[in-house]
Amino acid sequence: MTSFTPATRDLQFVLHDLLSVETSQIDGFEDLDRETVEAILTEAGKLATEVLAPLNQIGDQQGCRLENGVVYTPEGFKDAYDKLCEGGWTGLDMDPEYGGQGMPYAVHTAVGEMHCAANMALNMYSGLTHGAASTIHAHGTDEQKQTWLPKMISGEWGGTMNLTEPHCGTDLGLMRTKAEPQDDGSYRITGQKIFISAGEHDLTENIVHLVLAKAPGGGKGTKGVSLFIVPKFLVNEDGSLGARNGVSVGSIEHKMGIHGNATCVMNYDGAQGWLLGELHRGMPAMFTMMNEARLGVGLQGYAQAALAHEQAASYARDRLQGRAATGAENPEGPADPLIVHPDIRRMLMDQKSFVEGARALTLWGAFQLDRAHRAGDKDAEALVSLLTPVIKGFLTDKGFDMAVSAQQIYGGHGYIEEWGMSQIVRDARIAMIYEGANGIQALDLVGRKLALNGGKQVMEFFALVQAACDDLARDESLAPMGEALGAALKRLQAASGYFAEQGMKAPNDALSGATDYMHLFGHVALGLMWAQMARAAHDALAADTPDRDFYAAKLATARYYMARQLPATSMHAARIRAGGETVMALPAEAF
Amino acid sequence: MTSFTPATRDLQFVLHDLLSVETSQIDGFEDLDRETVEAILTEAGKLATEVLAPLNQIGDQQGCRLENGVVYTPEGFKDAYDKLCEGGWTGLDMDPEYGGQGMPYAVHTAVGEMHCAANMALNMYSGLTHGAASTIHAHGTDEQKQTWLPKMISGEWGGTMNLTEPHCGTDLGLMRTKAEPQDDGSYRITGQKIFISAGEHDLTENIVHLVLAKAPGGGKGTKGVSLFIVPKFLVNEDGSLGARNGVSVGSIEHKMGIHGNATCVMNYDGAQGWLLGELHRGMPAMFTMMNEARLGVGLQGYAQAALAHEQAASYARDRLQGRAATGAENPEGPADPLIVHPDIRRMLMDQKSFVEGARALTLWGAFQLDRAHRAGDKDAEALVSLLTPVIKGFLTDKGFDMAVSAQQIYGGHGYIEEWGMSQIVRDARIAMIYEGANGIQALDLVGRKLALNGGKQVMEFFALVQAACDDLARDESLAPMGEALGAALKRLQAASGYFAEQGMKAPNDALSGATDYMHLFGHVALGLMWAQMARAAHDALAADTPDRDFYAAKLATARYYMARQLPATSMHAARIRAGGETVMALPAEAF
Repeated sequence: MTSFTPATRDLQFVLHDLLSVETSQIDGFEDLDRETVEAILTEAGKLATEVLAPLNQIGDQQGCRLENGVVYTPEGFKDAYDKLCEGGWTGLDMDPEYGGQGMPYAVHTAVGEMHCAANMALNMYSGLTHGAASTIHAHGTDEQKQTWLPKMISGEWGGTMNLTEPHCGTDLGLMRTKAEPQDDGSYRITGQKIFISAGEHDLTENIVHLVLAKAPGGGKGTKGVSLFIVPKFLVNEDGSLGARNGVSVGSIEHKMGIHGNATCVMNYDGAQGWLLGELHRGMPAMFTMMNEARLGVGLQGYAQAALAHEQAASYARDRLQGRAATGAENPEGPADPLIVHPDIRRMLMDQKSFVEGARALTLWGAFQLDRAHRAGDKDAEALVSLLTPVIKGFLTDKGFDMAVSAQQIYGGHGYIEEWGMSQIVRDARIAMIYEGANGIQALDLVGRKLALNGGKQVMEFFALVQAACDDLARDESLAPMGEALGAALKRLQAASGYFAEQGMKAPNDALSGATDYMHLFGHVALGLMWAQMARAAHDALAADTPDRDFYAAKLATARYYMARQLPATSMHAARIRAGGETVMALPAEAF
Repeated sequence: MTSFTPATRDLQFVLHDLLSVETSQIDGFEDLDRETVEAILTEAGKLATEVLAPLNQIGDQQGCRLENGVVYTPEGFKDAYDKLCEGGWTGLDMDPEYGGQGMPYAVHTAVGEMHCAANMALNMYSGLTHGAASTIHAHGTDEQKQTWLPKMISGEWGGTMNLTEPHCGTDLGLMRTKAEPQDDGSYRITGQKIFISAGEHDLTENIVHLVLAKAPGGGKGTKGVSLFIVPKFLVNEDGSLGARNGVSVGSIEHKMGIHGNATCVMNYDGAQGWLLGELHRGMPAMFTMMNEARLGVGLQGYAQAALAHEQAASYARDRLQGRAATGAENPEGPADPLIVHPDIRRMLMDQKSFVEGARALTLWGAFQLDRAHRAGDKDAEALVSLLTPVIKGFLTDKGFDMAVSAQQIYGGHGYIEEWGMSQIVRDARIAMIYEGANGIQALDLVGRKLALNGGKQVMEFFALVQAACDDLARDESLAPMGEALGAALKRLQAASGYFAEQGMKAPNDALSGATDYMHLFGHVALGLMWAQMARAAHDALAADTPDRDFYAAKLATARYYMARQLPATSMHAARIRAGGETVMALPAEAF
């Protein structure tokens, strides 16, 4: 019962008014004028609306099924997937040398939001392939790239990432999967991997698994881990498919959500694999793509919130219940629509101000990756590295909250599966868990990213925020927003100082506040985005740009974020300052 | 895969150390010594552990099914329900004149926590009957009580509450179900009701529906609504079952959770019904039981959090992953247990400090109801009326959050249905919605309860909190907790003043902050409970009471709540102060 409208106008606003992609002087970006981007987004939106979205609920209801070693995806998924490939969407930002279209990652991300919001489970199949192909592109030999990339980029072959095992998720040093070297230079891979998204399915003729395993001679823990390419079907020299490899699906998981995506237990039984990148350097190779992968999950968090918000807003406009406190607004009708009620508005504004801020932050992050990868901008790369755990952790935590808030607007109907809100909540839940649970994101931020380049990046981020505050101060009507953001920034700076101080001498004090710090950081980052959006909207209004309602709404939403979301920073700051004593006080058996 | 351990020790602590039920001088309470209560709770816990809990996951997996007008509950539910009846648990606090055991409502509530945590969906069948029977007890004629109560109290017959219709949930004035008076004094009821929990099932031989409907001559809106008793089977004069009445189940809903409870669409097709209470006074009659019903839902919120917390704590002690930042704590093993990590601790402490505070607040509320109903204490009744929306709204919002937090500790396994954490989250979600969605609770608090008795009750509550702060100030080791609570109280008082001021002149300003106010109130209420529990634990330790570990843990958890949960009050206060302008700024079509 869910509907889906692509956020084309809003994505354009971020790409052009905020990021000015066209004039960024990155190779290839000069062609990205509004018309070109509009054409791409319109086509992508059409596919999302007409092909992907109608299968979202069907995918949830049918799920995937495993029969005799074959995983069947829900009805219609194969056709929809083929259309995704035919449209070239699987290779939009990939290397033209291997059949990609070479578009910016920021544009791929904008398209990704639409496709993820329309059907997260289905979109994950190509999402996983994208990640695996990017890893091969970054670390493969020329021969490996020639062998695997063209068909992964065209979508004819799928791809997966195999990290987790039954006894280890976060702590990959405990890994048991083994790789034995063979005389021909290949390896035999043996072990079990779990939680493998898109691990087996009927959408592609082959699946290229990237598998972490321990080859002889490596050190203990994650140091001994290498990365291998392990295809479902071996590939003959002429590129045709050969024998079935020793990899099979053991079972598919019954999950809370994303039922349309097959989450598999994969068994490797002496499967033939080829080393990807350097021996015993599998973790760094896998993690080269981490910024992109985590940004992609952050995107899932807010894209699901966007979908939920669209439903809730529409329901709140239609459903008649009660009267406005300030007098009937629909006096002819039996009652006023829900949207007249301030508490309903509060929820809608929470959702809207989060989604639009998150969209800006994610595209901003994608754009930094473009700067890094296409213009060799090391600063941009470090900046997005700093923000990556925030984008992943904060956007998925809040994205889930906002999906729950949108579901709440439906009252009892929100709990009934037919209405679709339950699915959005259940689907959104996974994004807080996979690709590094959000607690791990917080640790990454506090334990590693803060100290990046001796703290240079975090200082640079603070300077960006300060500049945005100063900029708002120039206009009387914007100044209060700058003050609110400035106060939040001060809290973030003080908390950062606390971590710098405690980090070494009392690590448990610092670590106890890690998640609060990630949220504090997230609010300031979204505040920065809103400051920049408020400025852009204000200037557009001042210049009498058409579409005044759009800019006025943007400005009003910015004010909401500053007034009603940023106060969370005071709570997080106080929790951080409270340290770790009360957190660690109890013995384990007291729980 | 979930386990369940009843919180017997903790419930005893609240009933005796905190509420001193035995010496409260309420009629019948003098027998409630520790041994008696221990015996009751131990028996109730045994049933919960051995009979109800093992069916929890089965109920979720199988759900209910409707075949030819008959609803079949999951395997084992009927046997378990019979055991619940045989043990006398369905009538524990009911009137002995009709076969009940006349125990305090507070003891019924303690037992209810165990049974709800063990199996929420199954426990709802008797919970609904309890509510319907209480309503008949409060408003029925002697004949009605004689006819219906004995078999409802014994559990032989079920009961339901029928309010919602497809087009109206919150706004019952829009109701369409009609009641036509007949010559024999009965009525013919015609209409459709939806979301009827336990509306039809195979657990009892009869079901007594309480139905709101419009009889001729009533005013518009809710004023014209009356309450009717409409049994599934008519009852002959000798008490035996007669003809099937004109009420049938139309369908059962596919819901996000509580699959084991049949949520029915009920069709009334000229069904015979009898007026319960006064004509056109159905709403007040239904709402007499509101405090109890809402307290019962608040209980579901924290009971599910308690169940989730128990699983998460056990998982965190067992699962080996990573090393403690301060040096290995399990050096012989391949890794340390999750519980050494501060961010895992933070989540466990959030859960624990919430659950135990919520338990105290709910039992405290139940005890006020006992004072009101059994000792005619009007002040107690008004106080629990004030706190009821807080208990319902705050405890279910936070209970859900804590279930999500417990699920998070499982990482990927939390998302897999076999582990049981997804079910807890899905089950807990409904408590935020039914029995008045939480936004309605917030409105009730701000719009009605604050002004109760000219504001006398809220002042009384403030005085209670202030007294607790003063009490903590008497001991140096407790004083910092008193200061933290005092600061939170000041924020609550300031916010209350804001509402008193804005309520009439700018209602949208007040209403925009309603939910934040409910949360602010909730934190102060839990802070009050923790202050009292800290005092009780401190004194027990000072008096060298056995079980020192228990009291020490209580004190440490109190410190955690004050240091790390109360800071949320500053966020809520700031959001309230921000008023309604940014909330209401956008036109409806801008969403």
